[in-house]
Amino acid sequence: MEHLDQLEREQLWEKIQGALLNEQIDEFRAEFLEMHPYDQAKIFEEQPEETRFLIYTYLSSEEIADVIEQVDEEIVLQYITEMNPAFAAQVLAEMSVDDAVDILNELDKNKVASFLTTMEQDAAEEIKTLLHYEEKTAGSIMTTEFVVIHTEQTVKEAMRHLRKEAPEAETIYYIYVVDKFEHLVGVISLRDLIIAEGDWLISDVMSDRIVSVQVGENQEDIAQMMRDYDFLALPVVDFQDHLLGIITVDDIMDVMDQEASDDYSKLAGVSDMDRADDNAFVSAKKRLPWLIILLFLGLFTASIIGRFEATLDKVAILAIFIPLIAGMAGNTGTQALAVAVRGIATGEIEKQGKWKILMREAATGLITGMSCGFVITVVIYFWQGDIFLGMLVGISIMTTLIAATIAGALVPLVMHRFNVDPAVASGPFITTINDIISVLIYFGLATAFMNLLL
Amino acid sequence: MEHLDQLEREQLWEKIQGALLNEQIDEFRAEFLEMHPYDQAKIFEEQPEETRFLIYTYLSSEEIADVIEQVDEEIVLQYITEMNPAFAAQVLAEMSVDDAVDILNELDKNKVASFLTTMEQDAAEEIKTLLHYEEKTAGSIMTTEFVVIHTEQTVKEAMRHLRKEAPEAETIYYIYVVDKFEHLVGVISLRDLIIAEGDWLISDVMSDRIVSVQVGENQEDIAQMMRDYDFLALPVVDFQDHLLGIITVDDIMDVMDQEASDDYSKLAGVSDMDRADDNAFVSAKKRLPWLIILLFLGLFTASIIGRFEATLDKVAILAIFIPLIAGMAGNTGTQALAVAVRGIATGEIEKQGKWKILMREAATGLITGMSCGFVITVVIYFWQGDIFLGMLVGISIMTTLIAATIAGALVPLVMHRFNVDPAVASGPFITTINDIISVLIYFGLATAFMNLLL
Repeated sequence: MEHLDQLEREQLWEKIQGALLNEQIDEFRAEFLEMHPYDQAKIFEEQPEETRFLIYTYLSSEEIADVIEQVDEEIVLQYITEMNPAFAAQVLAEMSVDDAVDILNELDKNKVASFLTTMEQDAAEEIKTLLHYEEKTAGSIMTTEFVVIHTEQTVKEAMRHLRKEAPEAETIYYIYVVDKFEHLVGVISLRDLIIAEGDWLISDVMSDRIVSVQVGENQEDIAQMMRDYDFLALPVVDFQDHLLGIITVDDIMDVMDQEASDDYSKLAGVSDMDRADDNAFVSAKKRLPWLIILLFLGLFTASIIGRFEATLDKVAILAIFIPLIAGMAGNTGTQALAVAVRGIATGEIEKQGKWKILMREAATGLITGMSCGFVITVVIYFWQGDIFLGMLVGISIMTTLIAATIAGALVPLVMHRFNVDPAVASGPFITTINDIISVLIYFGLATAFMNLLL
Repeated sequence: MEHLDQLEREQLWEKIQGALLNEQIDEFRAEFLEMHPYDQAKIFEEQPEETRFLIYTYLSSEEIADVIEQVDEEIVLQYITEMNPAFAAQVLAEMSVDDAVDILNELDKNKVASFLTTMEQDAAEEIKTLLHYEEKTAGSIMTTEFVVIHTEQTVKEAMRHLRKEAPEAETIYYIYVVDKFEHLVGVISLRDLIIAEGDWLISDVMSDRIVSVQVGENQEDIAQMMRDYDFLALPVVDFQDHLLGIITVDDIMDVMDQEASDDYSKLAGVSDMDRADDNAFVSAKKRLPWLIILLFLGLFTASIIGRFEATLDKVAILAIFIPLIAGMAGNTGTQALAVAVRGIATGEIEKQGKWKILMREAATGLITGMSCGFVITVVIYFWQGDIFLGMLVGISIMTTLIAATIAGALVPLVMHRFNVDPAVASGPFITTINDIISVLIYFGLATAFMNLLL
């Protein structure tokens, strides 16, 4: 079986749909459950409400849980709300506890309480433990469904325990080892466990070089760590090293995707990325705050140019190069910004030192500035036949590029210094700052050397 | 053991360094090899050449291979080149075959040939098979170190085979099943294998719902698939369904990181993201191509304004709002661009249809345009006391925002239609296109209604 694309799923669904509508429950179940849960979810998401209600009656709460675990939180919320509440509670209980918690976190408190009292007590307890961890921390993405063994067990006993726990556990490929105080003291991979002899003690075969994270640690740092160390799972502990849960690599891939998307949105000046299925009002509401801020920054730029109205009145041709100079400043600033934000994220800048980075950006600005300045001087000389105008624009571009490149790197570094996420210094923000810098340089030079231009 | 940070690693190294310099080989090896390979690599990278040469003599080729597998390709290249060639060949042979191939791909052909003839034949053969796959395809990131079993084996036989292969295999958590023609026909997770009874046949316990990828498939699509389906490994096959290799989740995390970084760089107009340790000349060389292209696009904008010189001569105050209007066009265009590029990447746009997206962007532009246009009209009226100027700028902003928002979405959609990566429509490119649109609208309107402004 290959990965199904949209078309293949639609064709498959046409086959299955008949069974569903003709109440051929067994046929429907056989065909539907044959698919990977991800494909089940993709098909399920496209169904109208009536069909979804039919599917709720044809599948068990466990089967529905498998499907909706693959769906985006916001949409699952809608499904959970439309289901019969008792059935919804069962579905939540059957889901991976970390996924169930993510959904309950979006509901209001009364609703959560009513679900928790309806569902089976074991599941409710597990969910309650996880509910109070802060968003984007280890606690909020970990699961409590892991396998734990004790130092004094033998390999054979551990394997027996593992076989029993395997169906429920999120992963069985790393097995964590605790001592009699339930402190995390070691880890053994299933790979090493199956190679070991049955009568060996776990304490002799486990690795005590265990890497763990604190329950309050930031999810982005955990993602970085998991990628660096190539782990499939990481144990989460409290301050006394008690094992609280594990984080698996599939959750981390979602985190990485989310974080990359966030950085990208911020660079584009979209505070909270629109979804392609938002309507225009929702999109406009997400984009307007930035646009209004930038509008006022733009007015500030306008008022600066306004101060040079006398210069403009005398040499109107100056105006035609404003977008060029401001645009170049914005472009080079965004480049420097992106490099600095990534450098901070990867820790590369911490290592090199901020001064070295700023000096390097200044030198880069000097080289790019001299190159672009030279090109533009020559072009304007041949185009307008005015060497002084050419030199004015050329020198302005050069100076602007140096200043804008430094600004692009400096702003995120300063933000980082004051513990503000440097990625909020988005592209449009830097661009507008650099508009102001470029206009000041350009009109400042033009006013100073006006007599050469007349 | 917690994740080591920079400071902890430095402290640890101070302890170990003494052993190294005093030629206490055993002490050095004990301390150094106790660390996770990632931390070993971080420390190793910071050493000067003399220290690295000492370390080459103290560790085996296998131990060095473990260290440098954690280092960026470009830097590994330097290490491989500085080592004694015979030792380098051994190190390459000991590395994961996919990592060794990545490095050899960067070397010139003669050098590769000489390494391959020096190294042990088995390793050389494996590397040769992988060397000819194209970059960024499944073939280029897969490994051939996987465990394969046959349909007619029993669970017990399979487990015995697995125990033998485990130390060499990249993962043993999915075991792939082939028939007698070596066609991939099934998969069984280690989880299911250890639960199964020893005398059952593999063909009865394996899953035949196997998802595989073609060897030429794009790595970005594979990453998406692996995330959607939550796989830890994926089998790679040729057109006849012969199993060629496997791709593991750790390689995919690197791909995801790389792709996110690429998209981010392109939005910022940095074709090939600088590294924080590049010098200024290298950085400038990477950024200049974009800047020169944008410089000429900017000249085009200037020539358009030049056509309105007569208008400007009469109403010089028009010039002061050029950066404001052009800037707003650039900002809103970048927002629409980012949303469209992500929407294409996630497949959301394919699902909704391009027309619907464009209509939505047009409506979004209308709402943001009317809001910003209204605000600016009022502000300019109170600031400059000229309602016609206010209305001119307001209407220009409104029209510009609508056009720029549509352009921001349209450009990547058209590129996608013609199979160009939409992410190359970077922020600076859209910004410059929108400069031109905005200037045309603004001066067009100003010229048409000039008599009101005088």
